[in-house]
Amino acid sequence: MIKRNFLRKPKNQYKLRLITLGGTTGVTKNMYVYELYKENKLQDIIIVDCGIGFPKEQELGVDLVIPDITYLKDKTKFIRAVLFTHGHEDHISALPFHYHNLGKPPVYATKLTKQFLENKFREYGLRIFINEVDYKKTYRFGEISAEFIHLTHSIPDTAHIFIKTPAGNIYHGADFKFDLTPPYQDPPDFYKIIKTGKEKVLCLLTDCLGVEREGMTLSEKAIGDTFVDEMRKTKGKFIMTTFSSNISRIRQCMDAAAKFNRKVVFVGRSMKQNTKLARDLGYLPLYDKIVIKEEDAPRFPPSKLCLIAAGSQGQFDSALSKLSQKRNPYIKISAGDRIIFSSDPIPGNEDQIYSLIENLSELQADVVYSNIQDQLHASGHGNQDDLKLLVRFVNPKYIMPIGGTLRHQYVYQSFAKDLGYSKDRILMLKEGDSIWIEEEKIYPGEQIETKNIFVDAEGIGDVGNIVLQDRKTLANEGFVNVVVVLDKNNRLIKKPEIISRGFVFTAVEHRLFQKAAARIENIFQKQTEIHTVQLLKKQINQTLTDLFLKEKGRVPLIVITIITL
Amino acid sequence: MIKRNFLRKPKNQYKLRLITLGGTTGVTKNMYVYELYKENKLQDIIIVDCGIGFPKEQELGVDLVIPDITYLKDKTKFIRAVLFTHGHEDHISALPFHYHNLGKPPVYATKLTKQFLENKFREYGLRIFINEVDYKKTYRFGEISAEFIHLTHSIPDTAHIFIKTPAGNIYHGADFKFDLTPPYQDPPDFYKIIKTGKEKVLCLLTDCLGVEREGMTLSEKAIGDTFVDEMRKTKGKFIMTTFSSNISRIRQCMDAAAKFNRKVVFVGRSMKQNTKLARDLGYLPLYDKIVIKEEDAPRFPPSKLCLIAAGSQGQFDSALSKLSQKRNPYIKISAGDRIIFSSDPIPGNEDQIYSLIENLSELQADVVYSNIQDQLHASGHGNQDDLKLLVRFVNPKYIMPIGGTLRHQYVYQSFAKDLGYSKDRILMLKEGDSIWIEEEKIYPGEQIETKNIFVDAEGIGDVGNIVLQDRKTLANEGFVNVVVVLDKNNRLIKKPEIISRGFVFTAVEHRLFQKAAARIENIFQKQTEIHTVQLLKKQINQTLTDLFLKEKGRVPLIVITIITL
Repeated sequence: MIKRNFLRKPKNQYKLRLITLGGTTGVTKNMYVYELYKENKLQDIIIVDCGIGFPKEQELGVDLVIPDITYLKDKTKFIRAVLFTHGHEDHISALPFHYHNLGKPPVYATKLTKQFLENKFREYGLRIFINEVDYKKTYRFGEISAEFIHLTHSIPDTAHIFIKTPAGNIYHGADFKFDLTPPYQDPPDFYKIIKTGKEKVLCLLTDCLGVEREGMTLSEKAIGDTFVDEMRKTKGKFIMTTFSSNISRIRQCMDAAAKFNRKVVFVGRSMKQNTKLARDLGYLPLYDKIVIKEEDAPRFPPSKLCLIAAGSQGQFDSALSKLSQKRNPYIKISAGDRIIFSSDPIPGNEDQIYSLIENLSELQADVVYSNIQDQLHASGHGNQDDLKLLVRFVNPKYIMPIGGTLRHQYVYQSFAKDLGYSKDRILMLKEGDSIWIEEEKIYPGEQIETKNIFVDAEGIGDVGNIVLQDRKTLANEGFVNVVVVLDKNNRLIKKPEIISRGFVFTAVEHRLFQKAAARIENIFQKQTEIHTVQLLKKQINQTLTDLFLKEKGRVPLIVITIITL
Repeated sequence: MIKRNFLRKPKNQYKLRLITLGGTTGVTKNMYVYELYKENKLQDIIIVDCGIGFPKEQELGVDLVIPDITYLKDKTKFIRAVLFTHGHEDHISALPFHYHNLGKPPVYATKLTKQFLENKFREYGLRIFINEVDYKKTYRFGEISAEFIHLTHSIPDTAHIFIKTPAGNIYHGADFKFDLTPPYQDPPDFYKIIKTGKEKVLCLLTDCLGVEREGMTLSEKAIGDTFVDEMRKTKGKFIMTTFSSNISRIRQCMDAAAKFNRKVVFVGRSMKQNTKLARDLGYLPLYDKIVIKEEDAPRFPPSKLCLIAAGSQGQFDSALSKLSQKRNPYIKISAGDRIIFSSDPIPGNEDQIYSLIENLSELQADVVYSNIQDQLHASGHGNQDDLKLLVRFVNPKYIMPIGGTLRHQYVYQSFAKDLGYSKDRILMLKEGDSIWIEEEKIYPGEQIETKNIFVDAEGIGDVGNIVLQDRKTLANEGFVNVVVVLDKNNRLIKKPEIISRGFVFTAVEHRLFQKAAARIENIFQKQTEIHTVQLLKKQINQTLTDLFLKEKGRVPLIVITIITL
């Protein structure tokens, strides 16, 4: 009798490994690695998102931390693609730093995300080709396939990604809310979301930042009505501040401005840049009709102006701070002006925001912020009911809350109990943690060692602005790159490495950089207590600025990379 | 050359007509008629729901009004089926009155709905066969097909119905909320709902009663926690009152009781009856373990008792009112008892509820109601976000808000604007209105004349209870049926018709009923101003009771039908 071995169902020879290089408990710095193994051999890797983080001790948007991709260094030949969920800094902005080291894999992003990414690369003088996502397509990367699903968030063209592998299916549900009345775009693609629920989802990765808030998140649409109401009350200039990536909100403000015949002035670098990109994509159709240049603002009466300004978090050098300190050469705040903070304070920024509000109030302007007006801001992150709906739609076996803090993970864990998910079905991963996914099971994998990689890409004063506004100016000034390696106590364990481009001739360079290195070492020798990375960077920046000014009479872009071991 | 006529797409020869015989602006008395015409000839009729209404001027659950089906009388041969969405009185309880006149069509209902319907028929000494709905099936009624979709509401086994016809598809979205954590049952079948959105829905009929409330409706689950918290604080008897059809809530209360080792006593006719039906279906698994009879309650200390009582609306003769008036022979309210009103007042009932609360408080009991505790009641109707979600899921061309008042329809109209639905796409039908549905278009149809048909099925005092608890007793007493026809000013325009069964011998009957008719005529002659139907019924009831008591020494069930022309 023949032994019909071939009829036996073979044990599934596939395994998937998910590694969180960032984004799980740190909110920002999102980077997720999916590795497909066949018969224990690595076969295909895809990466989802590659964003920057913001070190705790510093102001938002000034200093950066990027994911540590050391783990991937000898695996680049398996990397089939990097996929992006949306265009926020903490999801895209680390790619320029890592693209080369990842082996320049194919990159996929939705329309606006692609623009923002390409712009990031341009900022660093780099180029990249990015595939624009077609929602109708199923993309194949080796034996992994991926479908993008249209979602809503505080930036247009936000997607979730449904990842199918022979080892099991994953729903990658990064930052989102279910906005049922999103201005200027379609509501979430509920059909596609719920269809995944019929295809056996082993694990749902879900945004969890809003898990403490009841109900559903306010629709972005509500804010548009607020703008109209507030603008109606405004005799002088109307000034709105929000995140510069929130294109829908900016568009709603422009619509309100058009209604009241106000010209729109964008103030602040990121605001100018993002709105220009959005205009090019057709996302701001009124742009050419009503936007005027900052320097033309004085030609219009205050009642005919609507300023849309960066700096809602009270960042010291932001457009709005400068306005509050009378440092804007063209525009002065005065009585009758109304300033709308269309954003909530990011925890930790309260002090600087309130002092900004006080400064603005002292200029006799009316300041409206969320403590005194309810509908000024709609979060981009789903509240409890949004999160519950996603679970009900996707119907996964396991859930991994991402994009929050450890606290949010714990809250999610008890929140999910009501949905029928016991603790052991809620996966709480920290940075560097990994899980193995095999047919029906999920179990913990090894911990990957990751370091903090800090980047200061801004330099001092306005140099950063020059870099980004005008590459030509930068080309004249050049840049200096300082790499400093520290131990756990932030002590220098290696001579600083300094390289530059376009700053000074090589002949001069050596002597100058020897001096620079010595001064940096001096900073560390002088310190009697452990300084924070942030403080150290400021000190290095100041020291080098002084030196370069004294020796050369000009200051290049100073990029400081601090690696702590 | 041959004229290839056969290739031309023929004009669709089908038309659908939707007639609202009740339920659009009156909240209750739901009855919807769908008529399919082929080449202008009526072909198939299906009816959705057939419920009672509650005349405005009277107490809930005492008097009834039923839909007027005169329009259907010569069309019964086309009626293919009556489908039911759920088991609430205002959706099912008129069927016993009309079943015969509708030509005894096939009836389809979900599990609990079927039980409640059969029970209704038993109450009137009638029998019926009801097909239990299989959610997986597509039912065909001539060229109309229907699928039932599992939803959540304040009663188990609630469904929406997706009606497909050659003239266009309709989503019949009667009373619902999206409960994402419904206790003891599945969440709504989102997949099936969203799938309808892919099949071109011409018109969505949607519950609109919650359209004034923001956010999503509280999950029924939240109430369970409240019961536990409140029970923990209770030293004496724990008494919960809610609608007797809210089986999930009753079960949650029983679960809490079990936790604290309290025996459960059902008080009130409807409460006893509905919980018994639910037990038979396996919906109250603890029933046999912890439910004791009312008369056994005195054998337990108050701290070991949990009463679940009918009468949350303060109805005069309800179980809770009797308790508050020390009219319950077995159970006395006293200090340390805690009474939880797990229901919101139905508008109009506030006075009687507050006086009930005062009576209970005077007995030294702690009374907890929604003014002083938030999470005592979860509405069964979707709030704004539930309603928005349904629209986004179903994605209809037209929307017809049903199950609310005219006010709710108007609120819905402006609410739907945000969803992108202009006024002309929101269909606001009143009772007797109809619309024609043809391929892509919807246009108004003729108005159907409907009358108010009032039924008083309760008699006076406790007779009603006898009727329903014990048909044998009723058989001894019999019943008297009085039909009174009034003009618009509530004046009698015809001698009252009186017939009876099992009350007195026919020989005696004639003389007695002549007298009765004369007394009724007398009521109308004496009235100097226009009395309400309600008052008139009370007067007739009282007059006949007095007469029968005096002449015969006993009172039959008196059923008064008032027809206003």
